[in-house]
Amino acid sequence: MASISEILKNLQQGDVKALARAITLVENEITGSISLLEKSNVLNTPVIGITGPPGAGKSSLVNSLINLLKQKSKIGVIAVDPSSPFNLGSLLGDRIRLSEHFNNSNVFIRSIATRGSLGGLSDKIMEITDVMRVFPFDYIFIETVGVGQSEVEIAGLADTTIVVMVPEAGDEIQTMKAGLMEIADIFVVNKSDHVDADRFAKNLKSLSASHMTREWQIPVVKTIVPENEGITELLTQIQRHQQTDISNLRRPYLLAEKCWRIIQKEKMKDINKEKLLKDISTLVSDKGFNVYRFARTYT
Amino acid sequence: MASISEILKNLQQGDVKALARAITLVENEITGSISLLEKSNVLNTPVIGITGPPGAGKSSLVNSLINLLKQKSKIGVIAVDPSSPFNLGSLLGDRIRLSEHFNNSNVFIRSIATRGSLGGLSDKIMEITDVMRVFPFDYIFIETVGVGQSEVEIAGLADTTIVVMVPEAGDEIQTMKAGLMEIADIFVVNKSDHVDADRFAKNLKSLSASHMTREWQIPVVKTIVPENEGITELLTQIQRHQQTDISNLRRPYLLAEKCWRIIQKEKMKDINKEKLLKDISTLVSDKGFNVYRFARTYT
Repeated sequence: MASISEILKNLQQGDVKALARAITLVENEITGSISLLEKSNVLNTPVIGITGPPGAGKSSLVNSLINLLKQKSKIGVIAVDPSSPFNLGSLLGDRIRLSEHFNNSNVFIRSIATRGSLGGLSDKIMEITDVMRVFPFDYIFIETVGVGQSEVEIAGLADTTIVVMVPEAGDEIQTMKAGLMEIADIFVVNKSDHVDADRFAKNLKSLSASHMTREWQIPVVKTIVPENEGITELLTQIQRHQQTDISNLRRPYLLAEKCWRIIQKEKMKDINKEKLLKDISTLVSDKGFNVYRFARTYT
Repeated sequence: MASISEILKNLQQGDVKALARAITLVENEITGSISLLEKSNVLNTPVIGITGPPGAGKSSLVNSLINLLKQKSKIGVIAVDPSSPFNLGSLLGDRIRLSEHFNNSNVFIRSIATRGSLGGLSDKIMEITDVMRVFPFDYIFIETVGVGQSEVEIAGLADTTIVVMVPEAGDEIQTMKAGLMEIADIFVVNKSDHVDADRFAKNLKSLSASHMTREWQIPVVKTIVPENEGITELLTQIQRHQQTDISNLRRPYLLAEKCWRIIQKEKMKDINKEKLLKDISTLVSDKGFNVYRFARTYT
C-alpha cells in the first residue's frame, strides 16, 4: 500500500491511478486524507464551474469543450450528481455522453454525489477539487445541477462560473434570473436555434450591461452544441476571464471562505447529526424542552 | 432597564414592546440574548414560510392573508429583505403595502436584512422566529425572496412552506422548478388572470401528482390578489397542512437542524472572517501556502 508521500509524488507527476486513489481517500475521509491535503502543493489550475437548470445542456457543453481542448490539454472533470433520484434519467444520459472520453488519457472524469436531496454540492467537493489541483491538469471543470444552493456554492469555489440557460419565451428575463448576475462570470444561451433565442440573449445582454463593473461585463455566449456553434467563443471568454484582474482579486476571498469551512468541519467533526435527531426525537414532547439549552450540552 | 425575566414575562403576556425589544436583543447579540433564548418557553405557533421569485407577489399575498385573519387572530410577520440593493425598488413598494397594518394591534411586522448579497436568510432568523413563538401569536409568517439559498433555508425553518409563482408561457414546467417539489408544501399560482395561468397550473398539478406521498400531495392554489380570489382557499390549505401528520413528523428534523446550527454558531463564535481574509491576503502569494495547514492554526 502506497504511503501518502508516494501518492502525492505520483499525483504531481500525473499518475491517474494516484489521482483516483487520492480522491477516494479524501471523499471517504480515510486515514491519511488530512495529511494528504496538508502536504499538497496546490497548482493554480483554473477551476471552471458550470451550473444551470437540469436540461440546459451542461454536460453536452462540457463534452464539446473537452473535444476542443483534449488534443493539447489535460482536463479534469468533476460531475456532481444529485443523490435525489429525480433527475436520474437525464443525468444517466449525460454521463453516457461524457463516457466517450473515458479512454482518452488527457481526460479524467469523476462523478460525485451531492450532499443531500436539495442539490447542494458534495461535502467533499472542496477537498476533491484541491486534490485535482495537485495533478498537472490544464483545466478543471466542475459541473453541477443548478437547483437550490448548488449554484451559490459553486460560485464560492470556482475561478470562473458559467451559468447555462435555454431560451424562454417572454419579453422579460425573469427577475429571478437577475440573482444570477451575482454568480455568473459568463452566461451561455444554449440551444440557440430556438425561436426565442435572439430575444432572450438580447435581454440577457442588456441586463448584463446594466450590471457591468470596471473589471468585467458578463458576456452572453450563444451556443448550439450539435452544430458545435459558439464553443470556441465560450473557450475564448473563459480564457479572457482568467486573464482579468477579477479572477486574481477574488482568490483571497475564495481561500478565506474555504478556510472558514475547513475550520467549521474540524470543529463539528464530533457532532453526530443522527444522534442529535435521535436525542431530540425522544425529548421533543417533554414539557419545557428548549433547543438552546439542549444545544449547550454539546458545546 | 427591564431584566431578561421581565422581558420574557411581558413577551408571554403579549406585550408588543417587549417583543420588539427581545428581537433587537437577539438580532444584535446583545448581552442577555442567549439567556433569553435559553429561558424561553416556545409555543407551537405554526410558522409559515413564503418564498418565490421577486415580483411573484409574495407581499401582496401575505397582505391578503392578514386581512382575512386579523379580526380574530394575532399575526406576526418577518419580512426578509435582501441587503443587496438589487430589488430595493419593488421591495420598498411591498413594505409600503404591508404598512397599512402597522396600526393594527393584532398585526406585528418586522423587517430584517439578509446575511449577504446572495439571498440567504438572516443569520438570526432562527432566533428571531423563536422569540416570536414566545409571544401569543396565532400565526407567524416569514416572507423571503426566493433567490439562491433562501428557499432551501426557509424549508428548514417553517412548518409549512408556500412557494409562490407567476404563470409562464410554454408547455412544460421548467425542470428547474421540479427542485421546488422538495421544498414546497403548497404551490400558489399568483396573477391567475394571466393568459397562461390555466395551463401553467395544470402542469404544476400533474407534476405534484407524480410526487404525491402517502401523507401529502402538494396542492396548487390559484390566486388573484386584487380580486381577493383564492385567498380563503390558500388559508384552508395552510390549515389542512398543519393538521396532517407530515407537519408533526417533520418537527424533530427541524429541531435537529436547528440544534446543529446553534452548536455550529457557538463553536465558530471566536473565528473572525475579516481577520481570516486579512491573514490570507498577506499569505496567499507565499510559495507553498496551504490552506489546510493554515486552517489548523485556528482549531
